[in-house]
Amino acid sequence: MHAVVPFAATDPKTRLASVLSPAERSTVARAMLADVLTAIVEAGAEPTVVSTAPLDLDTLSLEATIRDAVSVTVDDRPLTEAVNARLPASHDAAPTAVIMADLALATPDTLERCFSHDTDVTIAPGRSGGTNALVVSHPDFRVDYHGASYLDHCEIARDVGTSLETVDSFRLSTDIDEPDDLVEVLIHGTEADRAPACLRELGFALETRDGRVGVARLEETRRE
Amino acid sequence: MHAVVPFAATDPKTRLASVLSPAERSTVARAMLADVLTAIVEAGAEPTVVSTAPLDLDTLSLEATIRDAVSVTVDDRPLTEAVNARLPASHDAAPTAVIMADLALATPDTLERCFSHDTDVTIAPGRSGGTNALVVSHPDFRVDYHGASYLDHCEIARDVGTSLETVDSFRLSTDIDEPDDLVEVLIHGTEADRAPACLRELGFALETRDGRVGVARLEETRRE
Repeated sequence: MHAVVPFAATDPKTRLASVLSPAERSTVARAMLADVLTAIVEAGAEPTVVSTAPLDLDTLSLEATIRDAVSVTVDDRPLTEAVNARLPASHDAAPTAVIMADLALATPDTLERCFSHDTDVTIAPGRSGGTNALVVSHPDFRVDYHGASYLDHCEIARDVGTSLETVDSFRLSTDIDEPDDLVEVLIHGTEADRAPACLRELGFALETRDGRVGVARLEETRRE
Repeated sequence: MHAVVPFAATDPKTRLASVLSPAERSTVARAMLADVLTAIVEAGAEPTVVSTAPLDLDTLSLEATIRDAVSVTVDDRPLTEAVNARLPASHDAAPTAVIMADLALATPDTLERCFSHDTDVTIAPGRSGGTNALVVSHPDFRVDYHGASYLDHCEIARDVGTSLETVDSFRLSTDIDEPDDLVEVLIHGTEADRAPACLRELGFALETRDGRVGVARLEETRRE
């Protein structure tokens, strides 16, 4: 299975700007990318990072066996166009997966649940109607990532007459966009993952206030 | 499988107060409870609503076959105490499930994934470290719902030496607490569910603004 991993290499994760400097956002985004690529390779697929700008894979500190399985290509078109250019163009073409680079909780097991379906289109929805992981094997299906893309993709599948399966996964539903999402990385990240270690190094920790759980950052770790 | 469904019958869903009047919150909470009870019975379990105040099941408009499988008991103790009083007390006791009443996206399939595990403790975590669905078959395990209860429950399981399995489900991770959560009910609720129909009757609809999806409420549907 070939897996496309779109990556915004310039000024990533702007919705984390209230808690992370631009350089820190870039560090966290690359840690999450490294975790996602590792999970994809361990699930048996070959990822290509489709990056909006040149990206040196050696800066991601991937293990050698993972690094060898990953390729990078630069494409500065909008997300929808860049993905559609890489979906199967004929019935003979191999299925293609599209996995978002900020699925910090993705594991080989959860991705295998997506890769193993025998349908034209498989989607793991994100919160608020996003399309976090997608596998396409039918040449008539095309994506549209604007708005509630999960609903749009269900409609596109109906329109072109393809079968569609939804994968029910909390881990794949969790894309890390906003400060509140960091809670999930600290709770569910494993010891082998880079993103939780990266956040802890930056001073983030779980904090329970009024019975609800959030993240707090040690004041002395903040830098401009 | 016996399933305990804790229900706050008085002034429920206070974090929805910015978008729903007290009476409307009660209506939505009961619609979600009816959906959860229906999914539990269709998954093959027998639910008991553990309500903080008397509750007339006939007001939930359950189908007759579902209604016949549901019982109610009143217990006004805090959640943790009320649940612990109902967990297995010996190795001979049958496993007990504890399913939150606001899991509006729960389906028979997702609940069966919890019920079918052969471990001492099975947890479907909620967002921010909650414990949304739980199955306990070991008499030494007890709950503590305060704070990041998922992490606490993992620790309690380690302390008492029980096996623990985590169920990775977006549907079960989605408890409906805040206005943003209503998006998920409108996107993923099915035609047979009461909660999405109830929200639409109250004037809620999906709204895409700046490429992000939220809910909007028709002004004329608001009442005090």
